[in-house]
Amino acid sequence: MSDAELALLAALAPRLATDGEGIDRGWGDDAAVVRVDGAPVVVAVDAVVEGVHWHPNVSGPADVGWKALAVNVSDCAAMGAAPLAAVVALQRPPGWDRAHVEALYDGLAEAARRWGVALVGGDVVSSATGALSVTVLGALEGRQAVRRDGASPGDALVCVGALGGPATALAEIEAGTPRTEGLLAAHRRPPAYPEAGRALAEAGATAMIDCSDGLGADLAHVCRGSQVAAHVEATALPVPEGLHAAATALGRDPWELVAEGGEDFALLAAVPADRAEQAVRRAREAQGEVPAAIIGEVRAGPAGAVRLQRPDGTLRDIAGRGFEHGRTR
Amino acid sequence: MSDAELALLAALAPRLATDGEGIDRGWGDDAAVVRVDGAPVVVAVDAVVEGVHWHPNVSGPADVGWKALAVNVSDCAAMGAAPLAAVVALQRPPGWDRAHVEALYDGLAEAARRWGVALVGGDVVSSATGALSVTVLGALEGRQAVRRDGASPGDALVCVGALGGPATALAEIEAGTPRTEGLLAAHRRPPAYPEAGRALAEAGATAMIDCSDGLGADLAHVCRGSQVAAHVEATALPVPEGLHAAATALGRDPWELVAEGGEDFALLAAVPADRAEQAVRRAREAQGEVPAAIIGEVRAGPAGAVRLQRPDGTLRDIAGRGFEHGRTR
Repeated sequence: MSDAELALLAALAPRLATDGEGIDRGWGDDAAVVRVDGAPVVVAVDAVVEGVHWHPNVSGPADVGWKALAVNVSDCAAMGAAPLAAVVALQRPPGWDRAHVEALYDGLAEAARRWGVALVGGDVVSSATGALSVTVLGALEGRQAVRRDGASPGDALVCVGALGGPATALAEIEAGTPRTEGLLAAHRRPPAYPEAGRALAEAGATAMIDCSDGLGADLAHVCRGSQVAAHVEATALPVPEGLHAAATALGRDPWELVAEGGEDFALLAAVPADRAEQAVRRAREAQGEVPAAIIGEVRAGPAGAVRLQRPDGTLRDIAGRGFEHGRTR
Repeated sequence: MSDAELALLAALAPRLATDGEGIDRGWGDDAAVVRVDGAPVVVAVDAVVEGVHWHPNVSGPADVGWKALAVNVSDCAAMGAAPLAAVVALQRPPGWDRAHVEALYDGLAEAARRWGVALVGGDVVSSATGALSVTVLGALEGRQAVRRDGASPGDALVCVGALGGPATALAEIEAGTPRTEGLLAAHRRPPAYPEAGRALAEAGATAMIDCSDGLGADLAHVCRGSQVAAHVEATALPVPEGLHAAATALGRDPWELVAEGGEDFALLAAVPADRAEQAVRRAREAQGEVPAAIIGEVRAGPAGAVRLQRPDGTLRDIAGRGFEHGRTR
């Protein structure tokens, strides 16, 4: 979410529901938590729009369906919730024939099977612009929802998932240079880590967010919510194979692509320091073949500040330096 | 929903979840019902798109916000559920400045207050086309969800809410004739009847739907789902004041506008005949100033057939004659 989008949401806030009776978590987190007949229901919504969140020459319709579901599963994961069911509002432009729509649903269904989500309903309407808006419901299964605002100085920062692949792949496409094998995959078919999210919640995570806007921007959300600062070690960040070489070929700073790139859908969690090693191990066990690491720590300091220490020892302020959809492509 | 949209959904069906473990009601009703930590959660999604579901020269942004929420509250009402919370995915075209978006949210918030719904989350993304996709969660509070497929021959058909106003108002706009006071209101600010929906569910409704596509088309959904036919008496239909005169001025058949017009958001329920009078009374008591009437009966006969008996005694097949968004304007 860009600064302009954040400012807009702040202006809208008086019309929105905050935490209160029947609402465990209102506006302003990865997902809301609402009580329905006593049960806490996690609800996340995200829309993906043609030309903004994907380009037809980069992503096929099945990729788009996958992505529309994955980004919401990732939001549920960041609350520590198990995704259960989804509804889809499909906006269909004149150019999408039935085969195209079926391919979109193939991707939705493939992602739904991957994460055990049932596609239970939806709506198909005409529009001039292709878009899918997906809502995912999740269950907490007795856990507390992990919010953005519970991090404390001294907590370790844990990252599950690799950073920088999609940003680097899109930079290659923009520059017209050869594509590095594997980097585009996470743009086309974003990951989501609900099993790791549950493991981190059970390991005592004090705050969590999914990294959709970029490491710096998303850690800044946590830091502003929690009134703390964050210190991140570049050498600790999980980075996909080939990224450094690709950045060099592009003449780009690899740490900028890794820490400010966006669209990674990694999980970022604050965990009490004495439980962090165990949390990393459990997340890795729960999710399978995923990179997971302690990447830094929460510090007292200017609320919302996020500093990245590069391998050469220099510090860079990466708060607020994030990805804006439609800007970089 | 048009025939083409229905055919598309049928083609997509193999990818979608039907009733099963954890899913009390899957794809194919006004809303789905999903078990979350044991509680049945009603979830409805509908998108409204500029140029398709509203025109900026007819509806202001606050009207659009209201409508986007109302159509989903109406879907919850048709399941017998109490609407609780909503999330909103807003797609913002370049022409919508902050004041425009705030006005949309004013309408959303006004409708939310009207029906006791909390706006708990959402997403704002860029798009070439303005659209709002709203998901509403509802609670059954111990009631059974009322589906489309439980009507039996002999049940009475109950209608809560007036029919034909929006279709007539839009016909006036299209024809450029003077507008009849009051008819456009339900297009701009559609009603929803969740209190009546709960009352009908408690009174033993065997099937229910909200009338968004037109009386004929929506009763046909119930009749196909329940493998029955329907007989409707034109003279019993709740019609807004001024409609007959407006139809005459337009040179249109008033019963076509009433029975095939669409966008009414009335509730249509099948109720065992011996409980129908009581159901009408309770719906009216629960909802307040709303027209409610027994409009016909469920019959054995060709599944999906819906016949309207006009005041002159002639019968008209109105199944499948419904409103298609974007076609009539």
